[in-house]
Amino acid sequence: MIRRIDHIGIAVKSLDAAVEMYERALGLRCLRREEVPEQQARMAFFDAGGTHIELLEPTGDDGPIARFLERHGEGIHHLAFETDDIEAQLERARAAGCRLVHERPVAGAGGKRIAFLHPRSTCGVLTELCSIRPHRDR
Amino acid sequence: MIRRIDHIGIAVKSLDAAVEMYERALGLRCLRREEVPEQQARMAFFDAGGTHIELLEPTGDDGPIARFLERHGEGIHHLAFETDDIEAQLERARAAGCRLVHERPVAGAGGKRIAFLHPRSTCGVLTELCSIRPHRDR
Repeated sequence: MIRRIDHIGIAVKSLDAAVEMYERALGLRCLRREEVPEQQARMAFFDAGGTHIELLEPTGDDGPIARFLERHGEGIHHLAFETDDIEAQLERARAAGCRLVHERPVAGAGGKRIAFLHPRSTCGVLTELCSIRPHRDR
Repeated sequence: MIRRIDHIGIAVKSLDAAVEMYERALGLRCLRREEVPEQQARMAFFDAGGTHIELLEPTGDDGPIARFLERHGEGIHHLAFETDDIEAQLERARAAGCRLVHERPVAGAGGKRIAFLHPRSTCGVLTELCSIRPHRDR
């Protein structure tokens, strides 16, 4: 079952400029930063009432965020739903005819298990399913 | 102050097909539908842990959703933050140098007061600020 929206990933060219904008213009506070070399990205996280905003800056030229920026420019990259049973949720999507990016959950940031549905199946929205965190931080 | 993410607006070509996809593949239930002639759009709403997903289908050829679909195809159209003081939030954005779509709040769906920030100022994300609803429905 889908519990809530866990986070919204936004691709940006400059993390520093984007963090400053989110802090100054919206008054949100950056919780933490993280670099994920496997995804060639560094991130900054904000909390908005329990849902996180995840700003993503590419650190290489051919990671997924770099490719997204090249094609689309800055903007929302993905939408992540928290589920209490990621296998069942993935099976439901598969049975409904969704194209899956991951056939099985993979390891994501913060110890979560995640899987992506292809945007072609989900109204142009790259959709992430993620399991409930083992230790809730909210 | 930003309280939470109120909703995420997703532009779709066919509301019926998109509602079916969100129900079948994600297991979310459509709460209600609404048509807003001034925006040349009809909408379907889903709840995901307090944050709504708002699917938007154009009803005319030159409304904002039709133009978005023509330029970008299906995908996330806007991200809406709930605030307890929309005037102060708008003033903060202005002071930070944000380009505003609305200089003052305007009437939105469900009796809310809303204002948009231009995506050029907010990392490519069309950003809506909306006031807390007079009658909370969650």
